[in-house]
Amino acid sequence: MSKKNAFYAQSGGVTAVINASACGVIETARKHTDQIGNVFAGRNGIIGALTEDLIDTSQESDAAIAALRHTPSGGFGSCRFKLKGLEESKREYERLIDVFKAHDIGYFFYNGGGDSADTCYKVSQLSEKMGYPVQAIHVPKTVDNDLPVTDNCPGFGSVAKYIAVSTLEASYDVRSMAKTSTKVFVIEVMGRHAGWIAAAGGLAEDRGIPVVILFPEVTFNQETFIARCQEMVETHGYVTVVVSEGAHWPDGKFLAEQGTRDAFGHAQLGGAAPVVANMIKQALGYKFHWAVADYLQRAARHLASKSDVEQAYAMGKAAVEYALAGENSIMPTVVRKSSNPYVWEVGKAPLSEVANVEKMMPKEFITADGYGITAACKDYLYPLIRGEEYPPYVDGMPDYVTLKNKPLAKKLPAFEL
Amino acid sequence: MSKKNAFYAQSGGVTAVINASACGVIETARKHTDQIGNVFAGRNGIIGALTEDLIDTSQESDAAIAALRHTPSGGFGSCRFKLKGLEESKREYERLIDVFKAHDIGYFFYNGGGDSADTCYKVSQLSEKMGYPVQAIHVPKTVDNDLPVTDNCPGFGSVAKYIAVSTLEASYDVRSMAKTSTKVFVIEVMGRHAGWIAAAGGLAEDRGIPVVILFPEVTFNQETFIARCQEMVETHGYVTVVVSEGAHWPDGKFLAEQGTRDAFGHAQLGGAAPVVANMIKQALGYKFHWAVADYLQRAARHLASKSDVEQAYAMGKAAVEYALAGENSIMPTVVRKSSNPYVWEVGKAPLSEVANVEKMMPKEFITADGYGITAACKDYLYPLIRGEEYPPYVDGMPDYVTLKNKPLAKKLPAFEL
Repeated sequence: MSKKNAFYAQSGGVTAVINASACGVIETARKHTDQIGNVFAGRNGIIGALTEDLIDTSQESDAAIAALRHTPSGGFGSCRFKLKGLEESKREYERLIDVFKAHDIGYFFYNGGGDSADTCYKVSQLSEKMGYPVQAIHVPKTVDNDLPVTDNCPGFGSVAKYIAVSTLEASYDVRSMAKTSTKVFVIEVMGRHAGWIAAAGGLAEDRGIPVVILFPEVTFNQETFIARCQEMVETHGYVTVVVSEGAHWPDGKFLAEQGTRDAFGHAQLGGAAPVVANMIKQALGYKFHWAVADYLQRAARHLASKSDVEQAYAMGKAAVEYALAGENSIMPTVVRKSSNPYVWEVGKAPLSEVANVEKMMPKEFITADGYGITAACKDYLYPLIRGEEYPPYVDGMPDYVTLKNKPLAKKLPAFEL
Repeated sequence: MSKKNAFYAQSGGVTAVINASACGVIETARKHTDQIGNVFAGRNGIIGALTEDLIDTSQESDAAIAALRHTPSGGFGSCRFKLKGLEESKREYERLIDVFKAHDIGYFFYNGGGDSADTCYKVSQLSEKMGYPVQAIHVPKTVDNDLPVTDNCPGFGSVAKYIAVSTLEASYDVRSMAKTSTKVFVIEVMGRHAGWIAAAGGLAEDRGIPVVILFPEVTFNQETFIARCQEMVETHGYVTVVVSEGAHWPDGKFLAEQGTRDAFGHAQLGGAAPVVANMIKQALGYKFHWAVADYLQRAARHLASKSDVEQAYAMGKAAVEYALAGENSIMPTVVRKSSNPYVWEVGKAPLSEVANVEKMMPKEFITADGYGITAACKDYLYPLIRGEEYPPYVDGMPDYVTLKNKPLAKKLPAFEL
């Protein structure tokens, strides 16, 4: 078997640790130069493959690749570009194979969530049919924690830690101010479909904070919500509300879509947090503050979870090792052996079982009233946020790397996206 | 001279390090039990003094007081309650003196911003007149960094570090996504009147990030702002906008007050960030994301600046030492001797020079076009964010202390606020 090159790409929303997976892939490949040639990365994800805009990672020093482990975001660029069915997107799939063939690529490492698992699966199917077999391995990544089979997804642990810590800190603040000022603090977190991130805010409860969570899994009920907030303020003097961006009314409309219009009559894209805060103000008159964490939460490498960084790296490393062991069309997974003490190992799942399956919060993780998390949920979450792995700092700011990202010479005609 | 007790209170918006000043006050007082009796703290700030709701800090262990150094927020509670002129608020000032007299309090340490400096000043004036002299020392605190005389205010360095790091991290994120998705990221920061916090976002520029800052000191100009954002996106592929909550139109109206109404016709309190983001979208069509950091920024002890923690502690310590040296009606200050290397020492300012003076960003700290910070501003900021001082963690979350806050027995009749 002649030595093949590898292709690596980052897909969809980036995380605090997706670069740690990239680091795991490239460092491991560099240890097996007898079997793997160069690692090419897609500039801006799969678009880089389609347009033959490949990054030559051999131009990056070992130190630069090592620094990816502590650098958030997608070091090679990512994209939101979904390939559809094999028939519908036939032209794109065939182009991928053409590019792989032109650059002698035998390994496809695709680092992303559900959509990219599906693409990865289809590439492995098609490449065989086309007589140019490529080993396609999906590297799991998503802050939403919604991939099946794996116990958790790299990226989630760090965002969960960020939300747990931020909820705790802001709650200490509102607790200090509640006597004469703010009594309600609302923090909006990511998770359009699954409430995993919102759940992490519930960990602040174990530090004595009165928390009310609005999950996407639980249909919003204004009456019981307001009553719960009132009860919390009357008991504790204040309340912290963690609202998922996916929290919605019975008709499915997101809380954030309030039909709000600005002075010019333009529909205004607001957040769920101000909507919820104003709702409480109107019903109960309490002074409020609200925050929308948005990208801050998923980019916060400064507060990454140690287990998350380790797992992100391990998934990248395992992807290469599985490929070298002849595996195809699989995804490395995190297998939890025990929560206390936390013991996990690397496993694998066939992509046929991963593609297009979304893992929601199990019912037993949400309290009966729908506003909190259960002990089982906390047992699940704690191991994922435990441990700190700080980046190095220079001049008071993290010393994140920006790669050179030198392009590889093109060999094929241009391709219209 | 008989041994007197001390009174300490926290005022106004709390910070990541105001408790470090409390720690400095109490630990220093505990080292001088020959001269200072007990330290009583006001529950919820000055309201605690007025209502004789005093906390007996002698009930707190040395370990609990030490833990204040790494705990954000106001450990004894703070309040927004402004005492007015000596005539207008005569009843309150006299009550303060009555409470001090009843509990044999000879030292008044008031930890806050401009308003509390004014109150502290008036107490020192009145107490002499009333024949019960109290040594009133103001301990500086404000994330807004707007106190005069002192080079900077404890609380500011940590929020500046948080905004600098968060701007950097979120910008790495949007840079990764910009090819097919988000091209504009807007982060809203605190600072109603002064743009110090917004300025900190400009430090990300030194890491290659295209940043546009909207200061409260610079009247908003939609046309030049949109042009600048377009230029940045066309040059770099993306842009990060740091908008101060105090950014305003020529008529003084805040950007956040867009006359927005919700579905029920209620005026909607939005943030400046969504307004700015939608404005760019409408003008240029770029996809955006926005965040409002709110309390997260000033509570983020997990990312505190080491020099800020040290200065906050030093101000508390110096307050007690100045009091023991017989000083009255002053505020300890940070005196910068040199920026590179950073050398500072503790100084002092008479409260007559501090009360009711607001320090804005100097003109030479803002670039000529009004959208960035100058090299002089960066020289000023870097020493304040340098160094990390992480709190201890348990189970993945910081181990912040919650004090017992046991009340002292009351001796006086009740007082109606």
